[in-house]
Amino acid sequence: MTINYKKELEAAARSMILVHEPDVLIKMIARMIVQRVKVKHAGILLHQKEADTYILTVSRGALGLKIPKGFARMDADNPLIRFFRERKDKQLFSDGAITYAEAKRFLKKSIKAEVKKLLKGALYQMEIFGAVVCVPSYFRDELLGILLLGDKRNGKKFGRDELDFFIALASDVAMAIRNARLFKQLQDELDKKQQLFINTTVALAAAIDAKDHYTRGHTERVTNLVMEIGKRLMKENPHLNDKFLEDLHIAALLHDIGKIGIPEAILNKANPLNNEEWQKMRTHPLVGATILQPIKELEEIIMGVKYHHERFDGKGYPEGLSGEHIPLIAAIIAVADSFDAMTTSRPYRPAKPKESAVAEIKSLSGQQFHPRVVPIFLQLYQEGKI
Amino acid sequence: MTINYKKELEAAARSMILVHEPDVLIKMIARMIVQRVKVKHAGILLHQKEADTYILTVSRGALGLKIPKGFARMDADNPLIRFFRERKDKQLFSDGAITYAEAKRFLKKSIKAEVKKLLKGALYQMEIFGAVVCVPSYFRDELLGILLLGDKRNGKKFGRDELDFFIALASDVAMAIRNARLFKQLQDELDKKQQLFINTTVALAAAIDAKDHYTRGHTERVTNLVMEIGKRLMKENPHLNDKFLEDLHIAALLHDIGKIGIPEAILNKANPLNNEEWQKMRTHPLVGATILQPIKELEEIIMGVKYHHERFDGKGYPEGLSGEHIPLIAAIIAVADSFDAMTTSRPYRPAKPKESAVAEIKSLSGQQFHPRVVPIFLQLYQEGKI
Repeated sequence: MTINYKKELEAAARSMILVHEPDVLIKMIARMIVQRVKVKHAGILLHQKEADTYILTVSRGALGLKIPKGFARMDADNPLIRFFRERKDKQLFSDGAITYAEAKRFLKKSIKAEVKKLLKGALYQMEIFGAVVCVPSYFRDELLGILLLGDKRNGKKFGRDELDFFIALASDVAMAIRNARLFKQLQDELDKKQQLFINTTVALAAAIDAKDHYTRGHTERVTNLVMEIGKRLMKENPHLNDKFLEDLHIAALLHDIGKIGIPEAILNKANPLNNEEWQKMRTHPLVGATILQPIKELEEIIMGVKYHHERFDGKGYPEGLSGEHIPLIAAIIAVADSFDAMTTSRPYRPAKPKESAVAEIKSLSGQQFHPRVVPIFLQLYQEGKI
Repeated sequence: MTINYKKELEAAARSMILVHEPDVLIKMIARMIVQRVKVKHAGILLHQKEADTYILTVSRGALGLKIPKGFARMDADNPLIRFFRERKDKQLFSDGAITYAEAKRFLKKSIKAEVKKLLKGALYQMEIFGAVVCVPSYFRDELLGILLLGDKRNGKKFGRDELDFFIALASDVAMAIRNARLFKQLQDELDKKQQLFINTTVALAAAIDAKDHYTRGHTERVTNLVMEIGKRLMKENPHLNDKFLEDLHIAALLHDIGKIGIPEAILNKANPLNNEEWQKMRTHPLVGATILQPIKELEEIIMGVKYHHERFDGKGYPEGLSGEHIPLIAAIIAVADSFDAMTTSRPYRPAKPKESAVAEIKSLSGQQFHPRVVPIFLQLYQEGKI
């Protein structure tokens, strides 16, 4: 008998290693087996190391759905699991995989009572799943999983050569799934670490923000607005990647970090600042950049902090940069920062109504503000998002 | 002819997927091929995507070392690379792998001048490497690598069945290496992210530290001492894991973060604080914990910040915890924090000599300080590490 699906499945198994989404991988494999091997259904019992249980992760049938769909969990003391874990009878396991028919025949032989009991339990479990073949797969001594196959659609029996092939395939599949899980785990850790980094920055930025009694909540509001502008800009400029948005986020959170170097007496002064006090206040972008300077990964972010008080016409500070020399991140923060300052009251002046602030920003496009950022800001305002 | 090494190599290739150190993996594979296939040497040319070059990552021989050891780099325009990338002559590539002898014969046929030129260049490259067989491996349309084999040690030629087997093997190998690289990349990203998190925390903590004129550099000194104590404790207590040390590090960096809530007038007062000012000053552990409270991943770290002014005898603040109720991280910070305060001068009192400060900490073990931490501190002092 020829196994005509062999080459195809082998090639598929080979490329599985680069699929790093466990769920996608498992579904792909089960579908492939059902289609190519032409069985009624197929399922994969996978080891969950943490809880030492086996989960029926997928079960798919073209004609019938005998294996219960959804979530089935088996503890380590389930007879089917114990049967493949303990491998007590050498003769029974000489072939790796077992078929229901084979195992039934085996029950009639004179085997140890203990093995007989376990085998009976395993067979009962196979019946529940409607499985006629079980193919275990191991990594070193760990039972990684069991491939369960239903009857062939053409009613024929599985041959020895087919079973051998499944043993190799099950091993590939289990290995690929294990690999994908490790990958997923690492990816999750990375996401968590990024979130931790952002959350800690948020908390510290908010604490520094709180020193300035008149601008409390400023950093949070500016960051929200900056992110709205950034996301919209990304939609229209596909060359801006995820790193741009991440950097923008951190830069917005840290833009006023340099205020930690400004005396409280200046930050909290109830009257307008005098000239000398203004000079001091205007050092905050540079102080912020200096604080972050040792961290070379923050290069883009530092540019955002350092230049968020530059003006498009070159009349800003600290360096008087103009036009496209001002980093985009800084130009975005400048708009959001000014808008929030205008719409927040000070002891010596009231807050501007939102409409006037928007009109002022519009009128200063190309002078104070970057003409690529202002239209986006206006769009968001017109859509009621500001 | 039987390929007696086939099963063994197949099984090895299968388990390769779980080796996530590319260097280890490549060495393992080359050694395996040299041993089992009994060739004089074997090498693997691997694609480096970023630079679009191919690097001879390993070359190992049991009898000879014809392929130059160490670092050999091939650009995308090297004839051997172009030959396998362009696959211009269908007939020549019908078999996947090529042998030196086969290719030589092909040169005599009437093939396009362009193909002939390329083939000649490729053959010359094979001669340099002493390779008699080249097995390319692809993922989709990308040439991932080329397996190079030297002569068999018994002097016999490679058969077609062997070549077919190598084609499958090379594909497995290339895939496994690609996978390992992706894994390594993710792992490196994770390490970088952790470092970024720590560096940013260091920078912000130092900035907050700088507000307090009399304790500048305090956080850095305390953190260094805390880490020395932590590492020594870990050696003696194997149940303390890497996470403990990471948490300890961040907690030390952030232990005085709450000082951001203390008015500068109190922090920088040249005279001893009065009662009311002390009350305010003593809120800093709680303020620090409140700042970090929203970040649930920082749970252990927050405990360190909140309780670093508790005393073993229960007479500390903010909660008057005693003995083992004080988290270990907080107990470690308490010792380092006190030692640094004692050995730093204030406008209203001089710094204590190191010896007196150590003696005081020793005498207060079990009263102010945790009796598990003090002996470690004394050990480090005796070794000249403090």
